[in-house]
Amino acid sequence: MSEREEDSKYLRVPALALKRLVAGLLEKYDVPPADAGIVSDVLVDADLRGVESHGVGRLLPYYIFRFQNGYMNSRPNLQVARSFGAVFNLDGDNGLGHVACHHAMQKSIELANKFGVGVGGIKNSNHFGIAAYYAMMALREGMIGICLSNSQPLTLPTYSRKRLLGTNPVSIAIPAGKSQPFVLDMATSVVPIGKIEVYRRKNLQVPPVWGADSQGNATPDPGKIFEGGGLFPLGGPAETAGYKGYGLSAAIDLLSGVLTGSNFLASVLNARVHPDPCGVGHFVAALKVEAFMDLEEFKERVDQFITELKNAPLAEGCDRIYIAGEKEFQQWEENMKNGVPVHEKVWADLSSLCAKHDMEIPATVQF
Amino acid sequence: MSEREEDSKYLRVPALALKRLVAGLLEKYDVPPADAGIVSDVLVDADLRGVESHGVGRLLPYYIFRFQNGYMNSRPNLQVARSFGAVFNLDGDNGLGHVACHHAMQKSIELANKFGVGVGGIKNSNHFGIAAYYAMMALREGMIGICLSNSQPLTLPTYSRKRLLGTNPVSIAIPAGKSQPFVLDMATSVVPIGKIEVYRRKNLQVPPVWGADSQGNATPDPGKIFEGGGLFPLGGPAETAGYKGYGLSAAIDLLSGVLTGSNFLASVLNARVHPDPCGVGHFVAALKVEAFMDLEEFKERVDQFITELKNAPLAEGCDRIYIAGEKEFQQWEENMKNGVPVHEKVWADLSSLCAKHDMEIPATVQF
Repeated sequence: MSEREEDSKYLRVPALALKRLVAGLLEKYDVPPADAGIVSDVLVDADLRGVESHGVGRLLPYYIFRFQNGYMNSRPNLQVARSFGAVFNLDGDNGLGHVACHHAMQKSIELANKFGVGVGGIKNSNHFGIAAYYAMMALREGMIGICLSNSQPLTLPTYSRKRLLGTNPVSIAIPAGKSQPFVLDMATSVVPIGKIEVYRRKNLQVPPVWGADSQGNATPDPGKIFEGGGLFPLGGPAETAGYKGYGLSAAIDLLSGVLTGSNFLASVLNARVHPDPCGVGHFVAALKVEAFMDLEEFKERVDQFITELKNAPLAEGCDRIYIAGEKEFQQWEENMKNGVPVHEKVWADLSSLCAKHDMEIPATVQF
Repeated sequence: MSEREEDSKYLRVPALALKRLVAGLLEKYDVPPADAGIVSDVLVDADLRGVESHGVGRLLPYYIFRFQNGYMNSRPNLQVARSFGAVFNLDGDNGLGHVACHHAMQKSIELANKFGVGVGGIKNSNHFGIAAYYAMMALREGMIGICLSNSQPLTLPTYSRKRLLGTNPVSIAIPAGKSQPFVLDMATSVVPIGKIEVYRRKNLQVPPVWGADSQGNATPDPGKIFEGGGLFPLGGPAETAGYKGYGLSAAIDLLSGVLTGSNFLASVLNARVHPDPCGVGHFVAALKVEAFMDLEEFKERVDQFITELKNAPLAEGCDRIYIAGEKEFQQWEENMKNGVPVHEKVWADLSSLCAKHDMEIPATVQF
């Protein structure tokens, strides 16, 4: 199932106009222009890549809502709390996660240019959009980028019925030559909670390995997963190796939350409701390919790797083998050409906020 | 299902005696004593930790078989092919994977002491046993250790029916205070191929998300998976998010095989049959906790993390929540006390090899 809901109306907005709109709105809440530019780039990039759940639809409930209520700092004092050689720990000062993580990835890239590798922790941060954005920053430098984050608890540890782990994403971006880069960006739960919500709204059953009810039993009922239950980690229940997804998710929280000095497990708060700082933690790394081999040689090898996968014999009934990130690059190209799809409800909210601030609303195309 | 087969006979051998035996046998095949010591420590540690599939049972088919036939170098010339700052790429010269990876992890730890992080690639290597061994080397220095490896193709990329990816393991070891450390060590396939083999021998069906038949269709028949089919990546088929396990597995091959200049995908060879160098690649990293925060503070936070997980409400019918590595630590303690369990067939093979080389066979206890 595509993330896009076929029974909803979408408008198309040119990417640049949408970025300006988002940045302009953030500036109204005292976000400095440079920071607003970063956030709008991350959010619109998510929509361009077809990851609607992490796009401009989050601007109001996740970010502006928190500025309106004074829950988040629009002008955080980003400071390196500690550093040693090629490693540093950045304090996000309860500002926008995008700004802190962008800053940390830039710094990691600088360190990788000097030391071959750069690693940064980010604490006291907030939701930062798509992890792939930061991992992909390394691609422009011919580097490999890695980005991890913890998030509010939605996932059940194996054998528990309590939501303790986030959907804790991992992104790994690896440059290629003629092919598009390899860009893995995955939550470590089987599916995102938004997918459960969609199935519930449509009165559809889900595969019984997506989540559990309030007693921790696997269930095909999305309502029971959504209310009182929780998501299974990647792999599903224990019998289908869900303990591996649980282990991965825990490792990501240990690196993003525990190691950085940020919140972890149940103490990472939900941005939509909690007045206290969410305490999200991130972890980024940049790795210089040339510390291993010449960049051109590496890119050719990655192309070979991708070609061998894409030319492999297909399973019955399948028409194509995908590479991590491939679908997102296709979406990006299509949406750059035709405009970014924005759900009509999201557009209505953005438009009324523009009106409130006497800002111009860009032209759109309905489809 | 435990890895141990309840219908087989096992002997118990004191760990130290078993290590001496394994090292002694390797020396008979011209492996230098220091290297033989490393390999025996890795193999016996796997058995101590209950990971029988990667223990001394592999000594003959995976390692001595290759020395006997001249397929592997007993005295490899380990050389740093390239290095830059905190990163290096080691050429394993077709020697034992254990020796190359041990060397690389030592070097990464030294680099992490200097730069906060050390990263090493290892190319032209061979099967190295359990990834956790190398990741855990970092624990002794109060560091976080990471170890990845590619391996011979057994896993199907999503939508393909060809075995192209290994069971490509990832291990992450994180020091704790009063608790045992967090030690994730997982293959990125749903299950190892050995588990399929056991079910086939016992004429049992497997859950239909473990693997596919020769057409790439999910099947509960272990025989069809074993012969002509393949393992599903973590998550199972696409509908249950197997594309995430596929993406992780591919990322591990890109870092271990492609980036290091080693073999990748189908070109990684099966140690049991191929005369050519297997071309296995590994990737290790050590991360200095004190680059982020004081080590004692970190260890306390890890203890809190573990306690919160262990005290979480249980799912119905479950009696305990586990932390990654916990079962293995328990096994290790039990086996250190009572002796290392060695399958009677493995013991018979070891004993006859000892006899051939006029080596003393240690006393054992049958159980």
